[in-house]
Amino acid sequence: MTKSDLLPGPLPNSLQLTKDGKLKHLLSIEGIPPLLLEEILDRAEQFVSLPDKAQNKAPLLRGKTVVNLFFENSTRTRTTFELAAKRLSADLINLDIRTSATTKGESLLDTIRNLEAMNVNMFVVRHQHSGTAHFIARYCAPHISVLNAGDGHHAHPTQALLDMLTIRQHKHAFPPLKVAIVGDILHSRVARSQIHALTTLCTGEVRVIAPRTLMPVGIEKMGVNVFHDLNEGLDDVDVVIMLRLQHERMQNALLPSAHEFYKRYGLTEESLRSAKPDAIVMHPGPANRGVEIDTKVADGPQSVILQQVTNGIAVRMAVMSMVMGAQSGYSQ
Amino acid sequence: MTKSDLLPGPLPNSLQLTKDGKLKHLLSIEGIPPLLLEEILDRAEQFVSLPDKAQNKAPLLRGKTVVNLFFENSTRTRTTFELAAKRLSADLINLDIRTSATTKGESLLDTIRNLEAMNVNMFVVRHQHSGTAHFIARYCAPHISVLNAGDGHHAHPTQALLDMLTIRQHKHAFPPLKVAIVGDILHSRVARSQIHALTTLCTGEVRVIAPRTLMPVGIEKMGVNVFHDLNEGLDDVDVVIMLRLQHERMQNALLPSAHEFYKRYGLTEESLRSAKPDAIVMHPGPANRGVEIDTKVADGPQSVILQQVTNGIAVRMAVMSMVMGAQSGYSQ
Amino acid sequence: MTKSDLLPGPLPNSLQLTKDGKLKHLLSIEGIPPLLLEEILDRAEQFVSLPDKAQNKAPLLRGKTVVNLFFENSTRTRTTFELAAKRLSADLINLDIRTSATTKGESLLDTIRNLEAMNVNMFVVRHQHSGTAHFIARYCAPHISVLNAGDGHHAHPTQALLDMLTIRQHKHAFPPLKVAIVGDILHSRVARSQIHALTTLCTGEVRVIAPRTLMPVGIEKMGVNVFHDLNEGLDDVDVVIMLRLQHERMQNALLPSAHEFYKRYGLTEESLRSAKPDAIVMHPGPANRGVEIDTKVADGPQSVILQQVTNGIAVRMAVMSMVMGAQSGYSQ
Repeated sequence: MTKSDLLPGPLPNSLQLTKDGKLKHLLSIEGIPPLLLEEILDRAEQFVSLPDKAQNKAPLLRGKTVVNLFFENSTRTRTTFELAAKRLSADLINLDIRTSATTKGESLLDTIRNLEAMNVNMFVVRHQHSGTAHFIARYCAPHISVLNAGDGHHAHPTQALLDMLTIRQHKHAFPPLKVAIVGDILHSRVARSQIHALTTLCTGEVRVIAPRTLMPVGIEKMGVNVFHDLNEGLDDVDVVIMLRLQHERMQNALLPSAHEFYKRYGLTEESLRSAKPDAIVMHPGPANRGVEIDTKVADGPQSVILQQVTNGIAVRMAVMSMVMGAQSGYSQ
Repeated sequence: MTKSDLLPGPLPNSLQLTKDGKLKHLLSIEGIPPLLLEEILDRAEQFVSLPDKAQNKAPLLRGKTVVNLFFENSTRTRTTFELAAKRLSADLINLDIRTSATTKGESLLDTIRNLEAMNVNMFVVRHQHSGTAHFIARYCAPHISVLNAGDGHHAHPTQALLDMLTIRQHKHAFPPLKVAIVGDILHSRVARSQIHALTTLCTGEVRVIAPRTLMPVGIEKMGVNVFHDLNEGLDDVDVVIMLRLQHERMQNALLPSAHEFYKRYGLTEESLRSAKPDAIVMHPGPANRGVEIDTKVADGPQSVILQQVTNGIAVRMAVMSMVMGAQSGYSQ
Repeated sequence: MTKSDLLPGPLPNSLQLTKDGKLKHLLSIEGIPPLLLEEILDRAEQFVSLPDKAQNKAPLLRGKTVVNLFFENSTRTRTTFELAAKRLSADLINLDIRTSATTKGESLLDTIRNLEAMNVNMFVVRHQHSGTAHFIARYCAPHISVLNAGDGHHAHPTQALLDMLTIRQHKHAFPPLKVAIVGDILHSRVARSQIHALTTLCTGEVRVIAPRTLMPVGIEKMGVNVFHDLNEGLDDVDVVIMLRLQHERMQNALLPSAHEFYKRYGLTEESLRSAKPDAIVMHPGPANRGVEIDTKVADGPQSVILQQVTNGIAVRMAVMSMVMGAQSGYSQ
């Protein structure tokens, strides 16, 4: 893991904006101007505040075709995009790429060209390799928008956006806040996107807390303070963001054991006392209860985990409707 | 198999009604008052009698999200609920739970909480364990309705409803009728739900016909007469309901062989002569031709098997539209 | 491979027309009168020329249910039919038959009967055996239309139609044209359907080019000229249609090697020079680049491969809307 993993050089983030500064693709939080980021959150807030019925069926994407291009399995994330698209009245096609064209040896670019020719309007891309969504955005037809639904260790921008919306709903302004992100920072695309979003929104202090084996070298350059002790890192924070610990990390010797991790970095009622009394607790889900978070905290009064899920649909509806309003004129 | 398998104690059936007696969930036929059961059949009858085009697209569930939560594979049943939801203009999400969240160790309750937070309106639940739909109904958010699409050996209420609709279309009133259910009563959730429905509707006589190894002990307490001889049991009945024989029963020594079963309990043109000349023949499908039913009978003039399929869509549309009209105020 | 493989005797093509000559099913190009074939192309052309938004959402099939009955996996073809159906506002059910009813031993006819009873309106059928779509069309209920999406080595009529539309867009009239089809003619349902379409439209000359091991005996009777040398066959043609080479052909000794095939029959910039300078190059996709076609030709100025994909959606929308307008009165 080097600096180039944190800031992939060959991916021009300007790619995601039109010439007049509107959202064309959502590839990473990096490169989204603060005002545009706030605009996305405002739009999402509108969807959340609509009465249920209006919230669940808007005609904004009627006549548009959205393709879920999932090269990596994630029923949970795929479902949130599927719901968002359907509630905007789009036609939605799920392509499980692992079992389809690639088995006939078709290349990624051939697949994209074919779907373009079918007059689709949006690709939602999830891939195990960093940069895939950028690659598709760079080479796809001008009328298409690309949303990154997670690429390798690189970015997961809609997750970061829903997190920002949740924080804003509880804490209103970002500059006075101290926010701690806890867990496997090294492998987390979620953490990268959260850090970019928090710094873009001028958060007072962003902390990352992890054992040395799960902390990327040079992460300070992203504008965060590094902690290896949980209680120290949580001291006086307003927001605690827990990350999901991937089981495979424990198998390849980066961690001694789940039990050991929980003892040192698991968020319990006791360790949470280091934070401000009104601190909120977040997790991208699904949580490993008893590994990175105690079930009492996950379901406790400070947890806003389920509100994150609700916001996830609203943020995806906001982004989808915004990129489809930005069809003409894009910068490259 | 004990009495508690027939009447699961800890599942309060009042759960499925609102305080003012409307349908909130459909978990089992047990506990549905006769008038409400008739109301469901009346509503379904309306859908059947609509002209095709109106039948296939009604706006009643527009803006609602229905989730097919199938923990047990059943393309056939899943498709009927999918069709019913789409024809009511709902958004429909298919979640194949075996390959999704559970592989990440998420608990059933976590899955439910997450889907609730996505603002879904209805769960259609199929599970290999009895009581799962009740469990979800008891713990889910108040705005959600749960439909049981089959749970273990316990219940399959929409199947029983479509059977009642079919019987009513041919025989009009239930009190004068003799109805025989034939086959693997022991393992059949369909049989349990049919018996509850038939007794609720005051059917003159309900008979169950099976070999001793496939007949639950104490079944008489459900208000049925027990027969071990097919011709005796079919004597003078108005309705013959055949059950599907699961192949695995023949492998674990409950049955000598499919051939032997067919000889003693298979419905042939000859054995059907014991029933009334205008008796109708029903089967929940898919039929094992030559195992529990002769192909001449399955396709014969007395068979109403395909009408059952048609009614299955109508009954599901009726139940879905009724529970969605009963959003406010529910009893627990 | 005998003549009966080319012209399956027991499949009455009149089946696909109503008594007054309208399209009821689309099973094969054989038996479609020239005027009707032109009418399909005209209708498809209308869809292509609509502005994007209108093209992507027409209400023509609102209230209709289309079932994708795919016994053979083909994500690509399935997706095109799914898109076409959804853009016509139909409800679309995908049935992956390999994992569903057949695992419970249900016969094809039982599956059809059940779906009919669910009041569906159209089957899109793909099957590894020739004649399956004809079989279903012959035995299904009168209100249902069947579209053949590929059956064995027999036919793939929508592919041929989109090819004809593409040729017509570039070359306008068929009688003056020389068209060459190159590759594995023996196993190609696409080639069969193309030959029928080209001869129906009175194409000046239709040539087939293949090694002897991949050329069906007696193919001349279909009205084509046979070539075994690529350059000779391509001499002065207006249209070059490449076929996809199935990898399994190379494993069972019909071909020495992919490399050898490419050397003799692969379409390169050099071999393409034998054709007219303004000849167009077509391929049903996905192309094996470097096996049957050079990547420079596939992506070159004469290639219309992606236009074929666009036309594929339009042709399927045209056929779907036409068969649904032809509900009453059919010949058998």
